[in-house]
Amino acid sequence: MNRILNIQLKIIVLGIMLSSFCVSAQSDESVLKAVYKTSLTNGKSYEWLDYLSNTIGGRLSGSTNAELAVQYTKSELEKLGLDKVWLQPVMVPKWVRGEKEMAYFTSNGKLNKVNICALGGSLATPKNGLKAKVIEVGSYEDLKYIGEAKIKGKIVFINRALQPDLINTFEAYGGCSVERYRGAAEASKYGAVGTIVRSLSSRQDDYPHTGSMSYGDLPIEKRIPSAAISTNDAVKLSQALKANRDLEFFFEMSCQQFDDVQSYNVIGEITGSEFPNEYIVVGGHLDSWDLGDGAHDDGAGVVQSMDVLRLLKESGIKPRRSIRVVLFMNEENGLRGGRKYAEVAKAKGEKHVFALESDAGGFTPRGFSFDGNDLMLQKIDTWRPLFKPYLIHYFEKGYSGADISPLKNDEILLAGLRPDSQRYFDHHHAANDTFEHVNKRELELGAATMTALIYLVDKYGVETSLKVNDIKD
Amino acid sequence: MNRILNIQLKIIVLGIMLSSFCVSAQSDESVLKAVYKTSLTNGKSYEWLDYLSNTIGGRLSGSTNAELAVQYTKSELEKLGLDKVWLQPVMVPKWVRGEKEMAYFTSNGKLNKVNICALGGSLATPKNGLKAKVIEVGSYEDLKYIGEAKIKGKIVFINRALQPDLINTFEAYGGCSVERYRGAAEASKYGAVGTIVRSLSSRQDDYPHTGSMSYGDLPIEKRIPSAAISTNDAVKLSQALKANRDLEFFFEMSCQQFDDVQSYNVIGEITGSEFPNEYIVVGGHLDSWDLGDGAHDDGAGVVQSMDVLRLLKESGIKPRRSIRVVLFMNEENGLRGGRKYAEVAKAKGEKHVFALESDAGGFTPRGFSFDGNDLMLQKIDTWRPLFKPYLIHYFEKGYSGADISPLKNDEILLAGLRPDSQRYFDHHHAANDTFEHVNKRELELGAATMTALIYLVDKYGVETSLKVNDIKD
Repeated sequence: MNRILNIQLKIIVLGIMLSSFCVSAQSDESVLKAVYKTSLTNGKSYEWLDYLSNTIGGRLSGSTNAELAVQYTKSELEKLGLDKVWLQPVMVPKWVRGEKEMAYFTSNGKLNKVNICALGGSLATPKNGLKAKVIEVGSYEDLKYIGEAKIKGKIVFINRALQPDLINTFEAYGGCSVERYRGAAEASKYGAVGTIVRSLSSRQDDYPHTGSMSYGDLPIEKRIPSAAISTNDAVKLSQALKANRDLEFFFEMSCQQFDDVQSYNVIGEITGSEFPNEYIVVGGHLDSWDLGDGAHDDGAGVVQSMDVLRLLKESGIKPRRSIRVVLFMNEENGLRGGRKYAEVAKAKGEKHVFALESDAGGFTPRGFSFDGNDLMLQKIDTWRPLFKPYLIHYFEKGYSGADISPLKNDEILLAGLRPDSQRYFDHHHAANDTFEHVNKRELELGAATMTALIYLVDKYGVETSLKVNDIKD
Repeated sequence: MNRILNIQLKIIVLGIMLSSFCVSAQSDESVLKAVYKTSLTNGKSYEWLDYLSNTIGGRLSGSTNAELAVQYTKSELEKLGLDKVWLQPVMVPKWVRGEKEMAYFTSNGKLNKVNICALGGSLATPKNGLKAKVIEVGSYEDLKYIGEAKIKGKIVFINRALQPDLINTFEAYGGCSVERYRGAAEASKYGAVGTIVRSLSSRQDDYPHTGSMSYGDLPIEKRIPSAAISTNDAVKLSQALKANRDLEFFFEMSCQQFDDVQSYNVIGEITGSEFPNEYIVVGGHLDSWDLGDGAHDDGAGVVQSMDVLRLLKESGIKPRRSIRVVLFMNEENGLRGGRKYAEVAKAKGEKHVFALESDAGGFTPRGFSFDGNDLMLQKIDTWRPLFKPYLIHYFEKGYSGADISPLKNDEILLAGLRPDSQRYFDHHHAANDTFEHVNKRELELGAATMTALIYLVDKYGVETSLKVNDIKD
């Protein structure tokens, strides 16, 4: 081909691409408008969340409620007219809280009741409870400076508050969650008989917040019971210890770890019209802790993800790639569902191009954080103006989500919905993570925002070299 | 001066300005960081709001509670070591609800209780209540098509819902509030005996939402009682009317308008170190409706504005201009405080350069809307990157606030804090506008965001021509 013809052809191709882009841009604006309108006027997420929260309730892995949630969401997905709906088997741990825990401390003859809950994975106290003196630390890291002589036979009280001046509360949580997770294993090495951890909450109140802990490779005979106490009780206990370092703390819990049981990820799919073998995943986790009804963590992410597929259909969008909603089991205390999904996808050689997780509460969406290469992020960033009318401003590089993280490789883009974070840790893992703390509009805005991103990724792809299949006429 | 020397001088001046700007930019970042940290770790806004909401409560103009709020906030401002604190007298209307209202409708022999409240400014029903048939309309605009024959002797039921697909709920509210304000005056023209209005709420629930209404220039004998019913009851009544258009609605209210009474704006000032005669105002309104405790509307704006002056002092900032906190009386049903402040300022020839109002709830701040000329907005826009770490993205031209609107002229910049709007109208003017629905961190982030803007406006000015007094060394 001669050079001039080549240039002319390039100009023609460029012209076609530009005109195609202009049409698309126009059309994308109206598609997004329709998606938000449908979610806010005819969304299903709030109704589904009501059922998951109020009819089923807390959905700890291995529980009857978790099984009911599997059946319910499968049945609801089947009503949507997707191309496929199925259960993906996965074995999950089964830990049971047992009786409601109780605790108190006595100081100068006065008994002070304490709001307490076992951490997930802890073993029970002896049948009649455990009573011991208390040693308070700011972090388990302090234990090595204090030494075994002062710790042995005592309950270690880790009193570390979330850092209040961090704007993103997830950063504050991330700084402290290791205390809850590893505290007991570390305290045991110095001869402690139990650990109590200040709840990882942004508020001062009376709710104890549970969450996972691990004994690591500690032999069974060295394992000690581990619990969380409310932030108010942490302050009271700390004050009481200042007045009387010999006060005694009592707690009683009957939690138990059983053998793994059968459970499932719930999956629904709209098969792609052009690239059925390229997969886009949107999901949240179906299990929750047992104290509340898991409305924010992660009922919200589950129902939003379900509604993404429904909103695509309601808006008349026929995806080019295959879109899957995946409701992962066992994020809270094992991540078995997330691992299983990635393992099966790899074994089948399924090409996953994008995965989006909603697991940060059903609050007003602010945007997304993206985990991918810089060229992908540059491409995503060109869509930012489309989101401005919906007050979605946050497009940053960062963490995506636990359940989709096992899908990570060099070719996939991962993303996490980023709702406003200020209230999340008021509720997280506590008895007040309940339906009435989820606002309908905020939840629905999240579902629409996720749908909008899935629509754009499906339409334009996120791969960074311009490919034939990304030029749509 | 020769031309080369002139150019050299210009370069030197530019160099000084640029280096000054770099130093300032560095320093502004750390000032904002300190302000946010102080608000989140050592703020007073939440404690003040607790007192205003839980110890005082609803603060309707002319009530004892409004007077208590004047005394309390004056006394708290006096503790801050400001340069001046004073009360600015203003006469305000006094409307009193009286006994709790009651209402029901009977259809097919069945009695249905209705959650109702008088609109502010309404007169009472006859002593034993008012019973009549109902005509439902979507807007008072429909009345002219229906005609007097079908309206005379009936209660007009204006059943207009907030438009759910508008992202900013204030837009949805703005579209409907005229129904509440003018409904009774319009219905009366067609011989209606009363009006009931669907509550201007974003939610479906049982709370009736009050708010101001006006009879305009309607003669006294033509005035008819006007009330709001809850959104749930509006749906029920509308359904019942479809089944039985002859059903009868009963309501009883004993509200009363008294003569105007003496009240006050509460004002505190830090006098400017360089330009004491240039004033910057930050404020909210001290009065509230009477059904809840006015925590969001506008206790939040009051305590945030008070904390702005305190946070400036705590952060060691010595303002160049005079900064005033103004707690306006009577925004809800008269705007007398806002008008009085502007009137006095004008009479005294006080030059106001900037005013910021917080009257949109104590929710996570998203940014500001600005009412000023384009050059001012361009200048403000250069500060946007300073706010990004605090997830403040919204800097748009728009409405500022009711209380500061009488200050409007060509030389002042007005601004309104724009918090997340999704939950505001769930609470606005209703019994559930209470302290427990305000999140401490969200409130404190708002106070910090306001302080940051006041700091920048004070330091750099908002006037659009570069003046000597804006170049600070």
